[in-house]
Amino acid sequence: MTVSTYPRINADRLMRKIMDLASIGAIEGGGCARLALTDDDAAGRDLVVAWMNELGLTVTTDVIGNVIGTWHIGTGASVMTGSHIDTVRTGGKYDGNLGVLAGLEVIQTLQENGIEPERPISVGFFTNEEGSRFAPDMLGSLVYVGGLPVEEALDIVGIDGARVGDELERIGYNGATPCPGFAPHSFVELHIEQGPVLEQTNMIIGAVTGVQGISWQEVTVLGQSNHAGTTPMNMRKDPGYVAAAIAVFLRGLATRYGGHQVCTVGKIDLFPNLINVIPAKAVLTVDIRNTDEQILRQAEKEFAEYLIEISHSEDVVVSTRYLARFEPVEFNADVVDLISSVAKTHTQSVVHMPSGAGHDAQMFARVCPSAMIFVPSVEGVSHNPSEFTSAEDIALGTNILLQVLCELAATKEFSQ
Amino acid sequence: MTVSTYPRINADRLMRKIMDLASIGAIEGGGCARLALTDDDAAGRDLVVAWMNELGLTVTTDVIGNVIGTWHIGTGASVMTGSHIDTVRTGGKYDGNLGVLAGLEVIQTLQENGIEPERPISVGFFTNEEGSRFAPDMLGSLVYVGGLPVEEALDIVGIDGARVGDELERIGYNGATPCPGFAPHSFVELHIEQGPVLEQTNMIIGAVTGVQGISWQEVTVLGQSNHAGTTPMNMRKDPGYVAAAIAVFLRGLATRYGGHQVCTVGKIDLFPNLINVIPAKAVLTVDIRNTDEQILRQAEKEFAEYLIEISHSEDVVVSTRYLARFEPVEFNADVVDLISSVAKTHTQSVVHMPSGAGHDAQMFARVCPSAMIFVPSVEGVSHNPSEFTSAEDIALGTNILLQVLCELAATKEFSQ
Repeated sequence: MTVSTYPRINADRLMRKIMDLASIGAIEGGGCARLALTDDDAAGRDLVVAWMNELGLTVTTDVIGNVIGTWHIGTGASVMTGSHIDTVRTGGKYDGNLGVLAGLEVIQTLQENGIEPERPISVGFFTNEEGSRFAPDMLGSLVYVGGLPVEEALDIVGIDGARVGDELERIGYNGATPCPGFAPHSFVELHIEQGPVLEQTNMIIGAVTGVQGISWQEVTVLGQSNHAGTTPMNMRKDPGYVAAAIAVFLRGLATRYGGHQVCTVGKIDLFPNLINVIPAKAVLTVDIRNTDEQILRQAEKEFAEYLIEISHSEDVVVSTRYLARFEPVEFNADVVDLISSVAKTHTQSVVHMPSGAGHDAQMFARVCPSAMIFVPSVEGVSHNPSEFTSAEDIALGTNILLQVLCELAATKEFSQ
Repeated sequence: MTVSTYPRINADRLMRKIMDLASIGAIEGGGCARLALTDDDAAGRDLVVAWMNELGLTVTTDVIGNVIGTWHIGTGASVMTGSHIDTVRTGGKYDGNLGVLAGLEVIQTLQENGIEPERPISVGFFTNEEGSRFAPDMLGSLVYVGGLPVEEALDIVGIDGARVGDELERIGYNGATPCPGFAPHSFVELHIEQGPVLEQTNMIIGAVTGVQGISWQEVTVLGQSNHAGTTPMNMRKDPGYVAAAIAVFLRGLATRYGGHQVCTVGKIDLFPNLINVIPAKAVLTVDIRNTDEQILRQAEKEFAEYLIEISHSEDVVVSTRYLARFEPVEFNADVVDLISSVAKTHTQSVVHMPSGAGHDAQMFARVCPSAMIFVPSVEGVSHNPSEFTSAEDIALGTNILLQVLCELAATKEFSQ
């Protein structure tokens, strides 16, 4: 098939669904707060399940609350798409929701146009992707692919003291379908970029090559609290200065490494945090990411060496603990190339790019050929009520998703 | 009179009072947290006022909550001593408290021994010397000497949103005595050094010649909150990095200047302060001190230039406001010499030195001949629960204070 043979999705209908879902848990500024497994999340789930039923999909809910709607057509394993509908506390309308509703729109468009893909098409939404209520994030897709035993997942207690298993039961999404779930033929997720790269480079479609590896550490610096006026500079053991020096070192490291290296110190707490007291203690977080595991390890090694060096030169005690560590994920090159070539039949503004954020697709990459399609986030803003992607870009991304899903359904084998 | 004619203070009684006061707002490690005008500060005030009453002093509370206990004896203006009893959040037992309780011990010793100074002796404690809850520090003594209108002082809002005037009323220390207060004949404050100089030079008594100039600024950095994973380094407007770079710049400045130059960033607050979010805003405090006003001004100028430079290079908006600015203070040479010569009748370990910290005495230096007596701080530690000065050094300092106050009471005129 060529591009001309694929029908176009109904952009107005898709946008209406996005807005209808966004009206559940709506917050000031146009955003959403549907933390995982809350009443608002349940209401959102009910709405999406109703839409799945309207399309005649077979809807299953598994033991961790992932919901999969499958259009049983063609033969063999499903081509799957989807994302999540939980949000952060100050979430926008598009993050996650787009990928789920675009999947439904693709199926509705294909059905209306009498197009029958060669494999079943499944659309899923996965529990607690954001991790804002329960840690870790991407919990549902992690359990789906067998990355965490169900029993452990159900026992996770959230920031409000609630247990995953109890909350699933309470909202009626403690399904019977077992995990790990079936391995799809392939998985493609449409998502907003949540970063500024597409917009800043005048690109519209990102063919996502993988997800950056993430190294999260908490660093605690113990020094000597003392009077800011009477303690000569050369007699100080100042954790506040050391915290600052660490942040400056990491900026320098990221600049030296270049490429996809990013380093962020987003959280610094000084104790006692007073204008005229050299702090006794500093606790800061360090977020180091790279698409290349070897470079990420090198960055961690350099950082560890720097901490030893500064602990000696400033006479402070430095300790670290890992809060999270994920290796980079590489998506299937065939699927990435398919996305890229399909996108180029629609627009020249296509770029291969990594994802800086984690997504459900990275979990599916463990069990089947997977990749993602990015559409632009205006000003790179996400996790914020003002998160915005134009209806035009959403339509373009969904039309590309439609074609990619159909072509995957026609694919027998992948080279890797 | 010669030294042999002065009675010795009761060191055990003084130490008991210090420990009794320290039991109010006691914190782990042997320290105190009695932030100005809190319930614990009120309880401390009540205890000291009760001790003043036991000595038969006339106790007045002024409109900014300064409490003065006067032993009406002799004629003319009071010779005043005193300090403060508020502490930082992680304060010790001696900072401030020593100067107040030593003053009471001096009066009690003189009374017991039937010695009548030629002038009234006043002992004061002054509101919010530390500045840990309300800026500026030394607020009470500043208002006492007419350095800040009472109405402005009452309207100051603290770090917890509380207003000075409301808190004074709440704890019942909104007195009727007007400010500015009466000008004492002279003022001498006994205080722990809060620095390492006496101990490191094997000295016991410091005759304090003046106080370092202090420049306190609050710096606010506004940038762009964004996702730590998806925002390339060169697209960031990161207030967290800028806050860190400022702290590192100030360390470098202090090292370059040498001498009595000190710079401290003791407080950093990032917003939203999350591991995976580039902050939208940073608010930090900057404490710059020098004994030389010209050098202090040069440091402020260089710092201001640096802020302009980094606001351009990092594409952030930087604003500053002064929280306090005091020029270096020179104490009265006659009073300093009197302290020094009295001290030398007790010990050879006497040194002239500047104070690195601000003290109420520097406010009184505006209205009467003033100076201070320092006793050693073990390891230079202060603003810390482990702050310590030996009972022996405290007794020596208080005996010197007794003699100095009596000799000042016998003094008609000063040369400057």
